[in-house]
Amino acid sequence: MAPAADKKLTGLVAATFTPITSEGEINLSVIGPYIDYLKEKQGVNKVFVNGTTGESMSLSVEERKLLAEEWCRKAKGKMDQVIVHVGCLSLKDTQELAHHAAQIEADGIAVIAPSFFKPSSADVLRTFLQEVASAAPALPFYYYHVPSVTGVNVKVRELIEGIEKVIPSFRGIKFTESDLMDLGQCISYSQPHWSVLYGVDEQLLGALAMGAHGAVGSTYNYVGCHVNKLISAFETGDLVQARTIQFKIQELLSFAIKLGFDVGVNKQLMNELSGLNLGPPRLPVMTCPAGRALAIKQKYDSIFPE
Amino acid sequence: MAPAADKKLTGLVAATFTPITSEGEINLSVIGPYIDYLKEKQGVNKVFVNGTTGESMSLSVEERKLLAEEWCRKAKGKMDQVIVHVGCLSLKDTQELAHHAAQIEADGIAVIAPSFFKPSSADVLRTFLQEVASAAPALPFYYYHVPSVTGVNVKVRELIEGIEKVIPSFRGIKFTESDLMDLGQCISYSQPHWSVLYGVDEQLLGALAMGAHGAVGSTYNYVGCHVNKLISAFETGDLVQARTIQFKIQELLSFAIKLGFDVGVNKQLMNELSGLNLGPPRLPVMTCPAGRALAIKQKYDSIFPE
Amino acid sequence: MAPAADKKLTGLVAATFTPITSEGEINLSVIGPYIDYLKEKQGVNKVFVNGTTGESMSLSVEERKLLAEEWCRKAKGKMDQVIVHVGCLSLKDTQELAHHAAQIEADGIAVIAPSFFKPSSADVLRTFLQEVASAAPALPFYYYHVPSVTGVNVKVRELIEGIEKVIPSFRGIKFTESDLMDLGQCISYSQPHWSVLYGVDEQLLGALAMGAHGAVGSTYNYVGCHVNKLISAFETGDLVQARTIQFKIQELLSFAIKLGFDVGVNKQLMNELSGLNLGPPRLPVMTCPAGRALAIKQKYDSIFPE
Amino acid sequence: MAPAADKKLTGLVAATFTPITSEGEINLSVIGPYIDYLKEKQGVNKVFVNGTTGESMSLSVEERKLLAEEWCRKAKGKMDQVIVHVGCLSLKDTQELAHHAAQIEADGIAVIAPSFFKPSSADVLRTFLQEVASAAPALPFYYYHVPSVTGVNVKVRELIEGIEKVIPSFRGIKFTESDLMDLGQCISYSQPHWSVLYGVDEQLLGALAMGAHGAVGSTYNYVGCHVNKLISAFETGDLVQARTIQFKIQELLSFAIKLGFDVGVNKQLMNELSGLNLGPPRLPVMTCPAGRALAIKQKYDSIFPE
Repeated sequence: MAPAADKKLTGLVAATFTPITSEGEINLSVIGPYIDYLKEKQGVNKVFVNGTTGESMSLSVEERKLLAEEWCRKAKGKMDQVIVHVGCLSLKDTQELAHHAAQIEADGIAVIAPSFFKPSSADVLRTFLQEVASAAPALPFYYYHVPSVTGVNVKVRELIEGIEKVIPSFRGIKFTESDLMDLGQCISYSQPHWSVLYGVDEQLLGALAMGAHGAVGSTYNYVGCHVNKLISAFETGDLVQARTIQFKIQELLSFAIKLGFDVGVNKQLMNELSGLNLGPPRLPVMTCPAGRALAIKQKYDSIFPE
Repeated sequence: MAPAADKKLTGLVAATFTPITSEGEINLSVIGPYIDYLKEKQGVNKVFVNGTTGESMSLSVEERKLLAEEWCRKAKGKMDQVIVHVGCLSLKDTQELAHHAAQIEADGIAVIAPSFFKPSSADVLRTFLQEVASAAPALPFYYYHVPSVTGVNVKVRELIEGIEKVIPSFRGIKFTESDLMDLGQCISYSQPHWSVLYGVDEQLLGALAMGAHGAVGSTYNYVGCHVNKLISAFETGDLVQARTIQFKIQELLSFAIKLGFDVGVNKQLMNELSGLNLGPPRLPVMTCPAGRALAIKQKYDSIFPE
Repeated sequence: MAPAADKKLTGLVAATFTPITSEGEINLSVIGPYIDYLKEKQGVNKVFVNGTTGESMSLSVEERKLLAEEWCRKAKGKMDQVIVHVGCLSLKDTQELAHHAAQIEADGIAVIAPSFFKPSSADVLRTFLQEVASAAPALPFYYYHVPSVTGVNVKVRELIEGIEKVIPSFRGIKFTESDLMDLGQCISYSQPHWSVLYGVDEQLLGALAMGAHGAVGSTYNYVGCHVNKLISAFETGDLVQARTIQFKIQELLSFAIKLGFDVGVNKQLMNELSGLNLGPPRLPVMTCPAGRALAIKQKYDSIFPE
Repeated sequence: MAPAADKKLTGLVAATFTPITSEGEINLSVIGPYIDYLKEKQGVNKVFVNGTTGESMSLSVEERKLLAEEWCRKAKGKMDQVIVHVGCLSLKDTQELAHHAAQIEADGIAVIAPSFFKPSSADVLRTFLQEVASAAPALPFYYYHVPSVTGVNVKVRELIEGIEKVIPSFRGIKFTESDLMDLGQCISYSQPHWSVLYGVDEQLLGALAMGAHGAVGSTYNYVGCHVNKLISAFETGDLVQARTIQFKIQELLSFAIKLGFDVGVNKQLMNELSGLNLGPPRLPVMTCPAGRALAIKQKYDSIFPE
């Protein structure tokens, strides 16, 4: 029942944007070049697709399947791991996507907590996740914790108590919250074959100190090359260097946040920095206001001169 | 472009539960008896289907279509109006459901604000709703405002400013919030052919005083007969009587809330009070804990003795 | 032990501003003219002093005593009732002020929930209030409920369960919250000698329908004359007229809120509308930005032309 | 105008409890033994008095002066630094306490953001703090940032922009929030003579990685000896050892939080662990429920066996 080709997920993972045409349809043709860009320009060879950054909640089930399939196909031989996020509000839809991810040979699935009807306890959430995992029992399973978005504040440490008994394929967490006590307790409790990946890009260094095994986030689409250096510096004990890079990223992100920074702005910033054409976001995310992404790009260029 | 058979929506509307079999599948066969029950036992002849009470966010698009279709078919000749809620996180899915509602000749559609990516302003939300309405331009369109669930706190008065210019089919609001200033301003601004229906059942009387045109909520499934009397008393100026009934409903609901009251408990309470077999809720809503619905039913019986 | 001259508190109560000189000191000399203004121009003859509007939390204990004393002295023979708010973060200070209020023969005291260390339950809050009341056992005691400011969300209905057993001088509530279920349950439970006064000025009509015995708020400093008409219309069953006035007040307040409306702006608006010189607010409340109060005054003039 | 004997504040600072007699009065006689305990048993020689842990908001101004005076007197020759927290809701009271702190030769003052009327921007808060600092211009000044308690979410980085121009005595921050981006930006911006001390004890290690200069918190009253080792391990690059200690503290605190952990429980835990008699808390903080502190002490003993 356990995942077949189990490879521990560590290092840097990019949460990918979803390419959209100017007509608003998904644009599979950009996925190949996108993968090449991540690998060659950012040194990133793991992706988390159809997540928050990928606006999966604004996609239909059918679109999510097409995207997941193309990511897996194009990543073959290029990326080390493709994790497909399959979470939806509906358990039925989530199970269908989990099953599909197994068919297309994704390297793992991740599931966000349902956020409309919020699970009232760790037990309820665990039961929901168990039902999803049972639809793809051979795939490594990751829980995606992002309470600022979902409003689901279940402590992850409580959720993962004895979780392998009900989800044998459980392999870790995308932990996107600033609370490092819960993170520390997850790391302390985690099994050797689990991965606790941190998702608040602007304070990764704190999480690394706490023992996080890697990082997954949207900014690694364009600061991956710098964060790879941050991680190396941290691993060799050069905290001063690691901190210098972290402070630069904080400077960039706080600048962006002051201007207004959502998935739409983030996507346009990626378009400008990468040269890829990932298109606009979908409603209810608005197209980036004119000039805003450019201003952030200029800040980027001043912080990270070539 | 305006809705063909435009009939102002007033009085009491029941937000219906979705019948589910013990195997967890939708159970269309109960819809007929459910309609008879509402009409005969509760004096309710308008329904709001596939809303929050109907757990629509836990249904697939296909299931929602089947349910909407059956509600419309069975309600024909029995119910005055069937409003189909078509809101989803994905605009594409929402448009598909809106288009379908037109095909099955629903009497109107309602749309909740998308709650994962939250619209950042009234303008963004209006644009989203406009895109939905354009998929069913001949159907009366209602905005479903429920910020405690969605986290979308856009003032409705701001949203509806000049809304008929972009949504000619706009016909009103399901207003589910305790803020009666925004409600009052919507009523004050509303056109004669609009309906502002109130959705916080436990304080309906306050909203009627403010001028609400009707009420829509889940409790009208089983206290509809009493609330019809409340409305009549209010209309004839008998505030003492209206208040007496409102206080009883408050007593019931505060009792339920103290025990723990969610859609799952509410649904089981309905099962016990109506004798219908609407089944359990779906994950992530949990099945009602044993005895809880029964305790609430006993409270009901003591408050509303036959 | 029970209050001596017990007079039920009903009708309209103005929550007063605290007069401050341009040097930032309390300005007792304005209190006399202020009382005359309220009585003659607004038809208001009850005041709630040293509350939120009076910025009591920005005053020292000594200043609060001086103010309370002057209000009681100047109101004698002119105002029907002077309720002195004595709540502080420190129980010791609150007791001192309660004792002082008895000495100066205030008509009652009111106490807000302590908001730094928030009471963890209704029991804790009741115990705190009991300790205050015991310092002035002969004075009518009112609980001031304003969770949006204090963050203390204890349901008032729960708080007042059996409260006369521990606070024999308990006489009512200043209820400042939009939740009309809790309000309704308080009214339904209230004894004949209690008063449940509503404090959300912009939705008073809803609370009157629910049975509120009166109203207390800051806007009655300048819309008191209009709200007296609203209450009269309501009492004679003329809901259309009551609603018309309520909608005007909503129009005024929503306009103000959009511009930015805090105690500082409110105070300056009062200065402009009344001609009194109540001075600026105290830090951390900022002086009203130039022109803002004037803009609101112009709106007032257009809504309520003489 | 600049502080005379300026000594950079680093390392571990205990936020002290306020000794109270069983009659509820302040108990100055325990302060001497308390200081000896901190120094000898915990290796802590810096204190932050009259803060949140010290329940200063439940004390009168007079009591705060007596306490501050006794702490300064008894600490002379024993403690390296005594920082007196002087924040109140009232600016006048805060200034009086700041002036008093200078008179008694405290080593510095700290000020929390006023939390009843919340400053509407960084500018307003800075102006408030400036007014306080001007009452004690020769004392090192620290801002105490604790948004989870105050509800004041002003970013500290924004607050401290150019702050020495208006507060020449500014020397740093007690930063009690999990957001390490704002922390990192404060550290990055901080002058050599400033101190950024971290106040979320359960995730100190993350803050140290980010460059925090020290720590201040209530748990250092009884885990100070362990955290001193954590800091040493961190400084020598032994992250594994630092993490091991941090995880133990997380285990202790999460255990306590699950049982219910507030200042009252924390104080009783301190009583049991230290053998000092600091007494109960004051209302509205409740006395620790019987057995709860003991259960946490047993957990402590199992995690940190002698």
